[in-house]
Amino acid sequence: MINFQCDYVEGAHPQILKALNDTNFVQQPGYGNDEYCARAIQKIKKACNREDIDVHFLVGGTQTNLTVISSILRPHQGVISADEGHINCHETGAIEATGHRVIALPSGDGTITAGQVKEVLENHYNSDIKEHLVQPGMVYISFPTESGTLYSKKQLTDLSQVCREYGVPLFLDGARLGYGLTSPGNDLTLEEIARLCDVFYIGGTKCGALLGEAVVISAENIQKDFRYFMKQRGGLLAKGRLPGIQFDVLLEDNLYFDICKNAVQQALEIRKAFEKKGIAMQGNSFTNQQFPILNDDQLNCLKQNFLYEVWGKADNGHTIVRFCTSWATKKENVDLLIKTIEENL
Amino acid sequence: MINFQCDYVEGAHPQILKALNDTNFVQQPGYGNDEYCARAIQKIKKACNREDIDVHFLVGGTQTNLTVISSILRPHQGVISADEGHINCHETGAIEATGHRVIALPSGDGTITAGQVKEVLENHYNSDIKEHLVQPGMVYISFPTESGTLYSKKQLTDLSQVCREYGVPLFLDGARLGYGLTSPGNDLTLEEIARLCDVFYIGGTKCGALLGEAVVISAENIQKDFRYFMKQRGGLLAKGRLPGIQFDVLLEDNLYFDICKNAVQQALEIRKAFEKKGIAMQGNSFTNQQFPILNDDQLNCLKQNFLYEVWGKADNGHTIVRFCTSWATKKENVDLLIKTIEENL
Amino acid sequence: MINFQCDYVEGAHPQILKALNDTNFVQQPGYGNDEYCARAIQKIKKACNREDIDVHFLVGGTQTNLTVISSILRPHQGVISADEGHINCHETGAIEATGHRVIALPSGDGTITAGQVKEVLENHYNSDIKEHLVQPGMVYISFPTESGTLYSKKQLTDLSQVCREYGVPLFLDGARLGYGLTSPGNDLTLEEIARLCDVFYIGGTKCGALLGEAVVISAENIQKDFRYFMKQRGGLLAKGRLPGIQFDVLLEDNLYFDICKNAVQQALEIRKAFEKKGIAMQGNSFTNQQFPILNDDQLNCLKQNFLYEVWGKADNGHTIVRFCTSWATKKENVDLLIKTIEENL
Amino acid sequence: MINFQCDYVEGAHPQILKALNDTNFVQQPGYGNDEYCARAIQKIKKACNREDIDVHFLVGGTQTNLTVISSILRPHQGVISADEGHINCHETGAIEATGHRVIALPSGDGTITAGQVKEVLENHYNSDIKEHLVQPGMVYISFPTESGTLYSKKQLTDLSQVCREYGVPLFLDGARLGYGLTSPGNDLTLEEIARLCDVFYIGGTKCGALLGEAVVISAENIQKDFRYFMKQRGGLLAKGRLPGIQFDVLLEDNLYFDICKNAVQQALEIRKAFEKKGIAMQGNSFTNQQFPILNDDQLNCLKQNFLYEVWGKADNGHTIVRFCTSWATKKENVDLLIKTIEENL
Repeated sequence: MINFQCDYVEGAHPQILKALNDTNFVQQPGYGNDEYCARAIQKIKKACNREDIDVHFLVGGTQTNLTVISSILRPHQGVISADEGHINCHETGAIEATGHRVIALPSGDGTITAGQVKEVLENHYNSDIKEHLVQPGMVYISFPTESGTLYSKKQLTDLSQVCREYGVPLFLDGARLGYGLTSPGNDLTLEEIARLCDVFYIGGTKCGALLGEAVVISAENIQKDFRYFMKQRGGLLAKGRLPGIQFDVLLEDNLYFDICKNAVQQALEIRKAFEKKGIAMQGNSFTNQQFPILNDDQLNCLKQNFLYEVWGKADNGHTIVRFCTSWATKKENVDLLIKTIEENL
Repeated sequence: MINFQCDYVEGAHPQILKALNDTNFVQQPGYGNDEYCARAIQKIKKACNREDIDVHFLVGGTQTNLTVISSILRPHQGVISADEGHINCHETGAIEATGHRVIALPSGDGTITAGQVKEVLENHYNSDIKEHLVQPGMVYISFPTESGTLYSKKQLTDLSQVCREYGVPLFLDGARLGYGLTSPGNDLTLEEIARLCDVFYIGGTKCGALLGEAVVISAENIQKDFRYFMKQRGGLLAKGRLPGIQFDVLLEDNLYFDICKNAVQQALEIRKAFEKKGIAMQGNSFTNQQFPILNDDQLNCLKQNFLYEVWGKADNGHTIVRFCTSWATKKENVDLLIKTIEENL
Repeated sequence: MINFQCDYVEGAHPQILKALNDTNFVQQPGYGNDEYCARAIQKIKKACNREDIDVHFLVGGTQTNLTVISSILRPHQGVISADEGHINCHETGAIEATGHRVIALPSGDGTITAGQVKEVLENHYNSDIKEHLVQPGMVYISFPTESGTLYSKKQLTDLSQVCREYGVPLFLDGARLGYGLTSPGNDLTLEEIARLCDVFYIGGTKCGALLGEAVVISAENIQKDFRYFMKQRGGLLAKGRLPGIQFDVLLEDNLYFDICKNAVQQALEIRKAFEKKGIAMQGNSFTNQQFPILNDDQLNCLKQNFLYEVWGKADNGHTIVRFCTSWATKKENVDLLIKTIEENL
Repeated sequence: MINFQCDYVEGAHPQILKALNDTNFVQQPGYGNDEYCARAIQKIKKACNREDIDVHFLVGGTQTNLTVISSILRPHQGVISADEGHINCHETGAIEATGHRVIALPSGDGTITAGQVKEVLENHYNSDIKEHLVQPGMVYISFPTESGTLYSKKQLTDLSQVCREYGVPLFLDGARLGYGLTSPGNDLTLEEIARLCDVFYIGGTKCGALLGEAVVISAENIQKDFRYFMKQRGGLLAKGRLPGIQFDVLLEDNLYFDICKNAVQQALEIRKAFEKKGIAMQGNSFTNQQFPILNDDQLNCLKQNFLYEVWGKADNGHTIVRFCTSWATKKENVDLLIKTIEENL
């Protein structure tokens, strides 16, 4: 069986394992004070073309989301998110467990608009009984979204503007950032993201690392004391070198972007194969996740050799499923999948 | 400079790195549903001689402590701990952040006694205004303690008995469990710990792994829904294989215990060298942490070649420092330290 | 100006003030251990025809909701509510501040159905990734609802059955319970509510008291330690006699029900007047809140002499407003309002 | 039996009940937007000689403490308190339930010193591992303390200075403020307290009201959004007029201070009677609480006619008990107690 279920079914990029081996006996201080973290931070600052940003390494997405969000909000505030946002759907109420509501906005394609956010903020501050309501205190978006879609430069700029107008930080979940930045559908740069967002992260776990998310805090007013929050939420690794080494490797010689770009290209070839067969796709994903809408015969055919993820029911006896590529996806497996689509569906 | 500051200054035991390499391209489900986790769990069940325990893998100590404790306590309850307990001293209020008080008891050597715990419980339930007080809801101990000391079988049995009498779960923090179980001062087995405690963990991070703590829940009444808590607190790794592989390796052929035992022996040789010089030691540690009490001349001498951790001030112009060994400590470095102690202090 | 905005614009029923005066210098223990609380509790037990229930007095609705809900849920659980439920709309995220999500279900008229709740529970427990989701841990309903509607005996019985089947407690917010039980549209008794729900409260603040809600915990498994939760959330009054005296008075000689019934009758007369004028009403409220849908001319006319609450926009240049009666509403004011409706709208 | 157990065994000062009666049918907006609150706030501003302070009314001490403290602290911060502080001893972990540690400092007489606070702050900020520690984020004191003692103007000024130097707000719990300000042992004014503290409250419940604490926020940087916090924690009363009317009455014609002063004088007469008998007193309380240390014979004698509170064990077969006066203590009861002390002990 060939597994296309998600982008975390293998270990790590071989260069990461090599670096772990090479550095294994070098003695280093704990808790992120090692030289590998320092080097990775320098590379990220350079990639963002910013010296005044703070960079920290956390383990995974849920941990990063809850640590960042609870570090920013005051007790009476909630975080605005698309209804399909990860914090709203797949984190067991991790945000609420830190005391805050997720204010979910309807979203067709995974994104939310500047207009929607402005309306929420306006409605709140214009209410006669606003003290009875959760105050919207920050905005959470994903890039790419859960549906594989992207914010355009225009959309992100508009969102950023509304957020700054109302003084609510903008937080971008970049668990799959590499797949977004290297998509042919993307017109944003890392530098622009660092400028337009107040805080975001460069996902490692789903982009070639064993684990690790690099949190970039670009807004100075939310940088203070972040290491306390990391420690309190269980995210300050004793062996902080582990994410440090990995990001040091991933950001060397463009590796992070090369492997993500390759995965996106593979995904788009798979998409093309489905479309050529006249199979409808859920949403306009130009990233490493593809969501064909398949009937039972097609599902049965594909499940002979391939693992995919069931995403949801479509209306008409069809099922939306997810095929995912990653840094580790082998060309021969993609070819076999495409061949199966072409010949057997 | 040779670093004896702590037991997490190097990477991981080479067999772990080898296993990460060997398995790297094997496709596995995420979130701990992989075959490596399954194998590691089986080995832990066997080592505990129990089939009815639950085993889960978390990333680090603070995360494990906050996840376990908040999964057990009801909102009005607190957790009893020695005042020097890790949750009371070095976790940035992680337990309080989940809503619960740490009820700290005075402790000379890092341990708390059955008598102390019984007194707290009796005082609480006999109080006329008990609803105005934090209800003691569980007991947290460390084995070894922060001071490197151990609970004897008698002490742990007594504690366990009091806890069961009052219906408060007993939780043992085993971040350094390997160094405790392999100490010549120890008379407890893993099986006994699983029987006497309701929940405990087998520390990986400080005992040879890159990261990872294996939580063993032996009391059936607190096993339910633990994976929800892991996810909510950010501890359910997408690549759950990472701790799985590591514990699978560590529990093969007694590796975990062999490497810990070796570290303890090295530490005891260092202790002996200090004592032979007439240097007082803080506490009776028979584990991998040693706490000599040194004057300024001695400190200056040692700091030429060695890194140690300052632990606290002694009364008389002396300083308590910590020397730590680990699975990675090289014999030649121990020899050099002992030689320096013998010849230069 | 005559105020029909809500049911808390006056003080308390005169018999309550008289009792406060009469008992003022009687010395009593604090924290609810006084004889007035004891008497009120006995009366409530009698009214529910149950000796095995626990009764406690809290100050207001939000406090009661957050104290009850957080006393029941475990950290990974959320509470199911209608989207228009008070905990979802008008409590500044009080439930989330205790760590729990409000799982909001769409509701046309303020009620949720047994079918909806069953579906949420089924979907959850059938999910492959349920540990990534908030576990539904209890159900919150209001009687009457925010829209003034009522659950029928059949509806509440069905809800109760689903809740018990899945082991999730059913909590009924009775902030306006008196107006519900005395409505001509109601077929439930207090005794049945105590039997069908696991916990509910008899609202005092909006039904004649200065403040106070009487929490009735009828399910034995959630009765334990409730006074701790009251104290911890700031709800255990030093002068616990204050709600005690009030409920003692309200439950004497059917006072609570008499005054609420009168208010409901007044509200229904107002409703009839609007309807006779051909004015549409929002929802089928047979309780003390009425929601006419008015055009601007009508609003301008009424606002000469009456205060009402703006409830929301209707589609067509009309506004939904709320007229509320209470124990304190004077007949002459109702008559004047009806006369204005009849003659001037 | 005559009850001297505490200062909340009766109802409210008769003028308060009269005002509740007089205003009962006046229609007023809810949630503290009524004219009585407005008037009480103006009187408090005048009494503090400050226009730039914010005043809010909450129900009781625990609610006020948890609402104020959680509104100020960020998640990684704790609040410094004397170990006998109410938040540390008698609030069921209410502060921890909002996510924060109480950092308890040893206190002989209920007060903490500027030097102690400075040391905690210095130790924290000088620590190499400060991110692993709870950051001290504010200071909580009581005036009078639980032991009835007072801060002098010098002591409070010093504390205030340290707090401002380190940027940590100073919060004064004034549940019994009236008894402190009118004590012959006091040299502070309300105006000075408003200047030296960042936030404090004027206790109503224990000083003549049915309930109510008037929170004064004098530091501008912590005034924002306080009504949200009140609502979220269940403290924004629908009938906000209730505390409003009471403080309006208490602050008219010096009533608050007159009744408290009288109670203090009664308490000091009781103290004098004990001392004349050679009975030792616990602590130097010049306020309405007195703590004689009595042997069993004396206890048995007094308990024939009087209720007192057992405070704790003294070393030598003696018991510390509390006798409390209040606005409601009758002269004849004080005389009878003194007579009993003089003639029968």
